[in-house]
Amino acid sequence: MNILKLGIPKGSLEKATIELFEKSGWRIKLSSRNYFPEVDDLELSCSICRPQEMSSYVEKEVLDAGITGKDWTLENESDIVVVADLIYSKVSKRPTRWVLAVPGDSKIQRLEDLEGKKIATELVGYTRKFFAQKGINVEISFSWGATEAKVVSGLADAIVEVTETESTIRAHGLRIIHELMTSNTQFIASKAAWADPWKREKIENIALLLQGALRADKIVGLKMNVPQTHLDQVISILPSMNGPTVSPLYHSEWFSVETVISEHEVRDLIPKLLKNGAEGIIEYSLNKVI
Amino acid sequence: MNILKLGIPKGSLEKATIELFEKSGWRIKLSSRNYFPEVDDLELSCSICRPQEMSSYVEKEVLDAGITGKDWTLENESDIVVVADLIYSKVSKRPTRWVLAVPGDSKIQRLEDLEGKKIATELVGYTRKFFAQKGINVEISFSWGATEAKVVSGLADAIVEVTETESTIRAHGLRIIHELMTSNTQFIASKAAWADPWKREKIENIALLLQGALRADKIVGLKMNVPQTHLDQVISILPSMNGPTVSPLYHSEWFSVETVISEHEVRDLIPKLLKNGAEGIIEYSLNKVI
Amino acid sequence: MNILKLGIPKGSLEKATIELFEKSGWRIKLSSRNYFPEVDDLELSCSICRPQEMSSYVEKEVLDAGITGKDWTLENESDIVVVADLIYSKVSKRPTRWVLAVPGDSKIQRLEDLEGKKIATELVGYTRKFFAQKGINVEISFSWGATEAKVVSGLADAIVEVTETESTIRAHGLRIIHELMTSNTQFIASKAAWADPWKREKIENIALLLQGALRADKIVGLKMNVPQTHLDQVISILPSMNGPTVSPLYHSEWFSVETVISEHEVRDLIPKLLKNGAEGIIEYSLNKVI
Amino acid sequence: MNILKLGIPKGSLEKATIELFEKSGWRIKLSSRNYFPEVDDLELSCSICRPQEMSSYVEKEVLDAGITGKDWTLENESDIVVVADLIYSKVSKRPTRWVLAVPGDSKIQRLEDLEGKKIATELVGYTRKFFAQKGINVEISFSWGATEAKVVSGLADAIVEVTETESTIRAHGLRIIHELMTSNTQFIASKAAWADPWKREKIENIALLLQGALRADKIVGLKMNVPQTHLDQVISILPSMNGPTVSPLYHSEWFSVETVISEHEVRDLIPKLLKNGAEGIIEYSLNKVI
Amino acid sequence: MNILKLGIPKGSLEKATIELFEKSGWRIKLSSRNYFPEVDDLELSCSICRPQEMSSYVEKEVLDAGITGKDWTLENESDIVVVADLIYSKVSKRPTRWVLAVPGDSKIQRLEDLEGKKIATELVGYTRKFFAQKGINVEISFSWGATEAKVVSGLADAIVEVTETESTIRAHGLRIIHELMTSNTQFIASKAAWADPWKREKIENIALLLQGALRADKIVGLKMNVPQTHLDQVISILPSMNGPTVSPLYHSEWFSVETVISEHEVRDLIPKLLKNGAEGIIEYSLNKVI
Amino acid sequence: MNILKLGIPKGSLEKATIELFEKSGWRIKLSSRNYFPEVDDLELSCSICRPQEMSSYVEKEVLDAGITGKDWTLENESDIVVVADLIYSKVSKRPTRWVLAVPGDSKIQRLEDLEGKKIATELVGYTRKFFAQKGINVEISFSWGATEAKVVSGLADAIVEVTETESTIRAHGLRIIHELMTSNTQFIASKAAWADPWKREKIENIALLLQGALRADKIVGLKMNVPQTHLDQVISILPSMNGPTVSPLYHSEWFSVETVISEHEVRDLIPKLLKNGAEGIIEYSLNKVI
Repeated sequence: MNILKLGIPKGSLEKATIELFEKSGWRIKLSSRNYFPEVDDLELSCSICRPQEMSSYVEKEVLDAGITGKDWTLENESDIVVVADLIYSKVSKRPTRWVLAVPGDSKIQRLEDLEGKKIATELVGYTRKFFAQKGINVEISFSWGATEAKVVSGLADAIVEVTETESTIRAHGLRIIHELMTSNTQFIASKAAWADPWKREKIENIALLLQGALRADKIVGLKMNVPQTHLDQVISILPSMNGPTVSPLYHSEWFSVETVISEHEVRDLIPKLLKNGAEGIIEYSLNKVI
Repeated sequence: MNILKLGIPKGSLEKATIELFEKSGWRIKLSSRNYFPEVDDLELSCSICRPQEMSSYVEKEVLDAGITGKDWTLENESDIVVVADLIYSKVSKRPTRWVLAVPGDSKIQRLEDLEGKKIATELVGYTRKFFAQKGINVEISFSWGATEAKVVSGLADAIVEVTETESTIRAHGLRIIHELMTSNTQFIASKAAWADPWKREKIENIALLLQGALRADKIVGLKMNVPQTHLDQVISILPSMNGPTVSPLYHSEWFSVETVISEHEVRDLIPKLLKNGAEGIIEYSLNKVI
Repeated sequence: MNILKLGIPKGSLEKATIELFEKSGWRIKLSSRNYFPEVDDLELSCSICRPQEMSSYVEKEVLDAGITGKDWTLENESDIVVVADLIYSKVSKRPTRWVLAVPGDSKIQRLEDLEGKKIATELVGYTRKFFAQKGINVEISFSWGATEAKVVSGLADAIVEVTETESTIRAHGLRIIHELMTSNTQFIASKAAWADPWKREKIENIALLLQGALRADKIVGLKMNVPQTHLDQVISILPSMNGPTVSPLYHSEWFSVETVISEHEVRDLIPKLLKNGAEGIIEYSLNKVI
Repeated sequence: MNILKLGIPKGSLEKATIELFEKSGWRIKLSSRNYFPEVDDLELSCSICRPQEMSSYVEKEVLDAGITGKDWTLENESDIVVVADLIYSKVSKRPTRWVLAVPGDSKIQRLEDLEGKKIATELVGYTRKFFAQKGINVEISFSWGATEAKVVSGLADAIVEVTETESTIRAHGLRIIHELMTSNTQFIASKAAWADPWKREKIENIALLLQGALRADKIVGLKMNVPQTHLDQVISILPSMNGPTVSPLYHSEWFSVETVISEHEVRDLIPKLLKNGAEGIIEYSLNKVI
Repeated sequence: MNILKLGIPKGSLEKATIELFEKSGWRIKLSSRNYFPEVDDLELSCSICRPQEMSSYVEKEVLDAGITGKDWTLENESDIVVVADLIYSKVSKRPTRWVLAVPGDSKIQRLEDLEGKKIATELVGYTRKFFAQKGINVEISFSWGATEAKVVSGLADAIVEVTETESTIRAHGLRIIHELMTSNTQFIASKAAWADPWKREKIENIALLLQGALRADKIVGLKMNVPQTHLDQVISILPSMNGPTVSPLYHSEWFSVETVISEHEVRDLIPKLLKNGAEGIIEYSLNKVI
Repeated sequence: MNILKLGIPKGSLEKATIELFEKSGWRIKLSSRNYFPEVDDLELSCSICRPQEMSSYVEKEVLDAGITGKDWTLENESDIVVVADLIYSKVSKRPTRWVLAVPGDSKIQRLEDLEGKKIATELVGYTRKFFAQKGINVEISFSWGATEAKVVSGLADAIVEVTETESTIRAHGLRIIHELMTSNTQFIASKAAWADPWKREKIENIALLLQGALRADKIVGLKMNVPQTHLDQVISILPSMNGPTVSPLYHSEWFSVETVISEHEVRDLIPKLLKNGAEGIIEYSLNKVI
């Protein structure tokens, strides 16, 4: 039987990933002491894996596919296929950014001022390539967390660190002088798995449902009754996401109009719909939008 | 750009109000130390304000509109526009009532027996007017909470106090002899804002969505298939809230019938629908019902 | 006025039963000190009752109907009507089983080896009958919980005990050699209530809604747009649970197709629907499916 | 090696018993699935056992000693040795009582009125003996909990039930007409264990430390300096629990006086001590008082 | 029988006050719906009362004594006896302060700049008197909480508000230009109660024990053995709080030295004691230090 | 002013370290976003640092002293001074061990069988040296957590991993074939700080108090009265930790005997003391034992 080997990211992405799979139709059951969670699909075998190592494992075909951050795939320079970007909108509104920061009172103002300086970071490879391309000589050392402290202690002149809200950076009195990369979660696959028809179809189907479930977080169903005389008018103000479903009502000059729209548009749209003759408007939640 | 200044009530109504706005389409983000919460609508600016002071602020146009209790608007005798009553059904089944209570063993039986007596209350103005209209002379003093204790301690002969379940009143051995007012939450606006076309439309649109979200708490969607022969029969037993949506099915003598009804009617209606020929009945939840 | 006396099971089934009734349309309000909870239906009167005693109370007509486990009805040999099996799928995936277990190092391998041995169990009657039918002489004693400990202490040679996951049995080093019965929750009624037309109709209506709510846990609504050219193809791959609702769209060669299907089929069905020409697929949750 | 087999009560006494042993010097470690907890004393082997069955197990020498309620020892008429009464003062101020209760509107006023009536109880044996001694004929049936409900449903005329605060009894509208027994926790031993010198000494040592730890909950240490001139005066007002420890101070006419007293006496004693010349009074907590 | 009527402050001081009384020897049992808590002393009767109203009630002899903030006693200009200052050190390290604050960008720099300006505060009386004494004319209005918002909204030019950490003040961008008062918790009594010998003694005894319990939070017991040759040396470096208790040891040239000292001195003192010849040093906690 | 730079370990040791310092007399206040916590001693400056990096920082004199695990000091081969072993007895009874484990069904039985095999570990340096000394050639790769999974996936033949209870190792079906090291928490200092008289004294004083607080976890105070006739007898059975404090009592032939002993000896000692004539025995807790 065909099996797809799938990597689930350990750490900050873990809970959101399990919940997304649940909403998409797969139940993944973690055990606190085992890195191979159960999943209710005989064609899948799951492994828990650190995001930092995921793309290497996929590249070496230890895993066929996995969920990880774009940053670590770039750091590892892994030769893999990016199947889909997964924007976990509920976790945070701001993207994950890797920035270069210096002490607030440092004389360093621009990247060029870093010539000959020491930089501490967990993202050694990417940072090295970044400065090499700019022709700036820097000494880069690996830091295993608590990176902000290193620049405060004087062990480094600058750091390259990940941040969403900049609060840790500001709490240490650091100043950001450059953004090296923004990152987001991705669904990736190995080239071999992508070339295998059965695996590719399985991967594409999973991607389809993951994206359908993510989309449903921000979209709602809307249904209303509209008289024939106002039908064109109402349809013309509906956002054009998918064309609306319009059904004639029985023994009547009225039509049922149903559509899906972004949740944040509803508050502006409903007053307009009423003005244009719609009645009996209801809104309902969705699980998936394909 | 036009801005509507909106007051959010502090205290017992605060959480329910924030949740209602969320369901209606606006996210209001409180900060524990700031009275000016963020809202995701550039046309709105929010302030946290005590319900007791809300109507005065609206009257003086410090705020254009606000959410508060009817009781405090009456207490302040504020000259404002009541845009909508908002019945927060989930918080409590019983209305908020202001009652006059005396010690269980007091000789006071009727309002007239209060002639010359001392009354403690937080609702000084309304109570004073109430007794003045009845021509009964009473001495009214302001009480800052723990009002029940004052009549037990002998500092007052009676109190006028707010209650939902009467449990605090009974726990102090008091007896209610009159109900002065029932209150509920209201959406209010200043006369000036109501006269300004842009502000009035903004206020009306907010009211429309707040009421649509409140209504959806108690209403569900119901959908079923009905053969043509039983269509009139089924339609006749559906509650007439909005007329049902009836759509002919493809290549068939059957129709799809869809309607919205009060959740508490469903358990009685479903057996009747089955008896009258409906099939494939499903019920689903709603977010808004306009 | 007619009243149906309904028994609610105390203990492990209590919470799930109350929630199921809530979803079905009845609010049952427990009080921590009273065995007669309130219910928002004047035709019902509820009592809390141990599952072990439920069927006897129904048989003696102290109650008209009740929720209990099949195991205790069989233990009591109660002469009642089984109205419906209620499979509470969310509580546990595995059925409740009564098994015969012996110490891991016991010489007992088969039921026959129990001849003349001592068995401890809470299910005395059923176990006695079971062995009598097989012609095996055993000495059965009643055990009030902590039954596993009795065989470990040497007070019994074997136990008959209830289990879902076998974890307690394994933790005491016991070995299962026979399964006597599997059980599940049932809705039962007395023969007299079933013979009374009003009570029977009330019981059937409750059963209808309880089953409708249980079914909705595992079923979702699915809606899509399909061009006329692919309509037969799409319909042919839809699971045949209820025939789909097909409505022609206005001024168009497209149709709206709507159906309900098992949640676990969705992940396989959606890719097929897309391949066969369906578009704009949405999935939504259901409260009841009749 | 000698081993003492000790029974720990399951249920409401379990947590308080484990904590008391901890304070006395033994750590008992429960496992959620095993009835034989570990203890850090090679001379002890612990078993978890229901209080209802404890005295029978001790009588039959399955256990050498155990902690249980006096009520169940009397119910079982077990022939055992009561080593010590353990009054767990922190759990509840009121003793556990077994009472006879009837519906509030019952005509039964005295025990004699129960002649020929039905009584439901979990304490069948004790209740039977109680009425036999009084020469009153009653029909006693075993009830497995929810006993209050039985008299409300009319299945029994009276109940014999355990209570501390009477709140469940009052919540069902019952009236207490007699108290059959008050109970408390006891440390019991088998006659054989008591006759064995090693076991008896082990049992007595455990009892000594359990009682020392219980006593320390209500007693504190008090220390003060007193001039020789006031020494007799101060000593005369100290409660006489144990004589105080009086030590002369170095190069001085002062003495250090140290004693242990009931915590609730401290607030009245300290002002008196000051008046009588004591100085530098300190109070500290105790773990054990033997 | 003599009874002392004691006021317990509602709100932020409530929990700390109940705990202090518990540690001092009185158990006060609050009921969520009753303002008259139970206390285990027949000579006391407790009432819950807002700190703002406490001193007025004591002055009018509705209460004999009470716990409240010094600020509200000054605000009310109540003619009462301050029995003791109670510094609740564990709640917060910083004292409660009433400060005058203005918007960060206000032109107001000194008190004199407030001439003719509007000030919002809950502390109307004290503030009025303060400015009258300085001969500065200001318009003072009562504010019922959310006072910071008023100056931001432009309803006032400055506020007088209570603060410990200044965090709310800073979160609204305000600037402090003057401190009007620092406050702390006090135990107060009415003049009449103070003149009544029985009441005065009861009040003094309570004050004695409250202060003894507060002191014990910051003080520990220290005990050591010292050879005669080093005794004077060791005693000379002990802090002189109370003279140490020195007892000669039996058949030996050594002495036991025992004292109480501030907890924060211990870490510096112990190394010195060892150097000066002390041995076997132990530290223990105290409940009360009189 | 002299300052000692002290490293506090991040992660699993963090909480226990902060609590130990609190008990020893220093309050360290963590901020969630800053690696430089505040401490109430002007002579100390604290930094949060990963245990893996602590000894390197101390060796390079970025820090003067720190708390870390012995394992990481050995891994880093840091040239530092071990001031004290700190056995945090309450956290876990078992020592931290680094073990070599292989799959349960592996043919590897002894260290020699690893010749030419792949080992994954976080402890690369120590492991490399270990095998080099034994003359066994192995390929060692760094693993960043989830090490057990690597041997299960076939990426390594064996792992060297840290464990206390072996539960994770067993949950992956691994078998331990060798223990490379046991570790515990240590207080370490740099050679330079140790050579500086002021810093050395500060470090020794901190070590003294940390050890005094750790010791007090397992030791209690015991005090009793003994008649002169039994004094030698009682003293002879007291454990000889520190000689007991013996004080003659006033006007009496009795003596007060006070000592400190291991908590786990108390339960055996008290019965013996009573038999030998001691009376009025009390036990109390200690904060520090030097």
